Amino acid sequence: MTNLEIDKQTKIAACIEAMNACNKCYVSSLKEYDLASLWESMKYNKEAAEICSFAAAALSRGTVFEQEILALVVKACEQCANESEKFEHIHCQSSVEACRRCAEICSTLSLTV
Amino acid sequence: MTNLEIDKQTKIAACIEAMNACNKCYVSSLKEYDLASLWESMKYNKEAAEICSFAAAALSRGTVFEQEILALVVKACEQCANESEKFEHIHCQSSVEACRRCAEICSTLSLTV
Amino acid sequence: MTNLEIDKQTKIAACIEAMNACNKCYVSSLKEYDLASLWESMKYNKEAAEICSFAAAALSRGTVFEQEILALVVKACEQCANESEKFEHIHCQSSVEACRRCAEICSTLSLTV
Amino acid sequence: MTNLEIDKQTKIAACIEAMNACNKCYVSSLKEYDLASLWESMKYNKEAAEICSFAAAALSRGTVFEQEILALVVKACEQCANESEKFEHIHCQSSVEACRRCAEICSTLSLTV
Repeated sequence: MTNLEIDKQTKIAACIEAMNACNKCYVSSLKEYDLASLWESMKYNKEAAEICSFAAAALSRGTVFEQEILALVVKACEQCANESEKFEHIHCQSSVEACRRCAEICSTLSLTV
Repeated sequence: MTNLEIDKQTKIAACIEAMNACNKCYVSSLKEYDLASLWESMKYNKEAAEICSFAAAALSRGTVFEQEILALVVKACEQCANESEKFEHIHCQSSVEACRRCAEICSTLSLTV
Repeated sequence: MTNLEIDKQTKIAACIEAMNACNKCYVSSLKEYDLASLWESMKYNKEAAEICSFAAAALSRGTVFEQEILALVVKACEQCANESEKFEHIHCQSSVEACRRCAEICSTLSLTV
Repeated sequence: MTNLEIDKQTKIAACIEAMNACNKCYVSSLKEYDLASLWESMKYNKEAAEICSFAAAALSRGTVFEQEILALVVKACEQCANESEKFEHIHCQSSVEACRRCAEICSTLSLTV
């Protein structure tokens, strides 16, 4: 396995982690007493999850639009983290952590480029 | 149905048209005598199809990242059209047409914004 | 265009119609006064929308698992319609209609097989 | 984290592993000298990758059609392994391994059900 592949696998793994944390945050939020105030944050979590899932699949098949799709991931994860960090629920904090990490990893240049 | 919804449906329909034309171009290209020279164009068709499919689903569920996702569609469709127009196969020309149309529709502002 | 293609296009179009109706039902339900009682139906609408979107993309690219994926669409649409028809909201009734139609179209044999 | 969640995470991870192996097999096959004979196997690898990606996302968001989607994963992975094991390329053997493992994990009952 080359450096390029290791690097891509790290990005795919970070996207899957963020997808899982965001989906968990969305589903858990639906059961919270403060559902109404969580609403905006939930929309970002749902969409960040979808974008991360799409990006993982695209990276995996070697998309020619890697740069553009990673830029979308970074933007979605950063905005999702900004919304989620307004809340103290554990699932919101886990989403913030996974999204910040995914945004950082997906905004780094590839090791071998 | 409001203007906003009509507008969104037009964009979804344009994405589905482009997805179909690009997938058809990819599959048809695999059977062409000049497969080797079509290779670059095929990669763009495959990815434009995936991006258009993702965008149609995202628009349909009311994504908060509509603007960013539409920008990705426009870029993918324009680049795919630029690659496909180098060839005279009917499926390549159909892809060019559907991609140019999708890029145009998806880069227009929403009617009611 | 051959009969087989026309047939496939009809199935893709039915899946996109169902995706749109189910997504609209899900989003509209979130704003209803009887949100709590709509909950079960909403889960089916969200998933039927995702499955129909996946199926449209799979049919479009000529999947080797067409039969299995269409069977999944039929099951998801039928169960979604069964849940949605318990409610009188217009968006629920639209979902029922689109899902029943999609299930019917996707369970018919291909014209040219 | 409950047993049910650990179990679901194992299935998601197995789907992502299979997605990666199948995509790698597809892309690598395109560069092989025996491309023509690999063709059938490639179609299965591409579709197994797409189905595994869809399943990982569906499991992550807590789909109500978990059983049906896992059944689709098992079928796609088993058929893909059956096709890929006809070839001795390392990427084909890796696909067989990941697909067999994913099919086994996704066909086991959930620990806490």
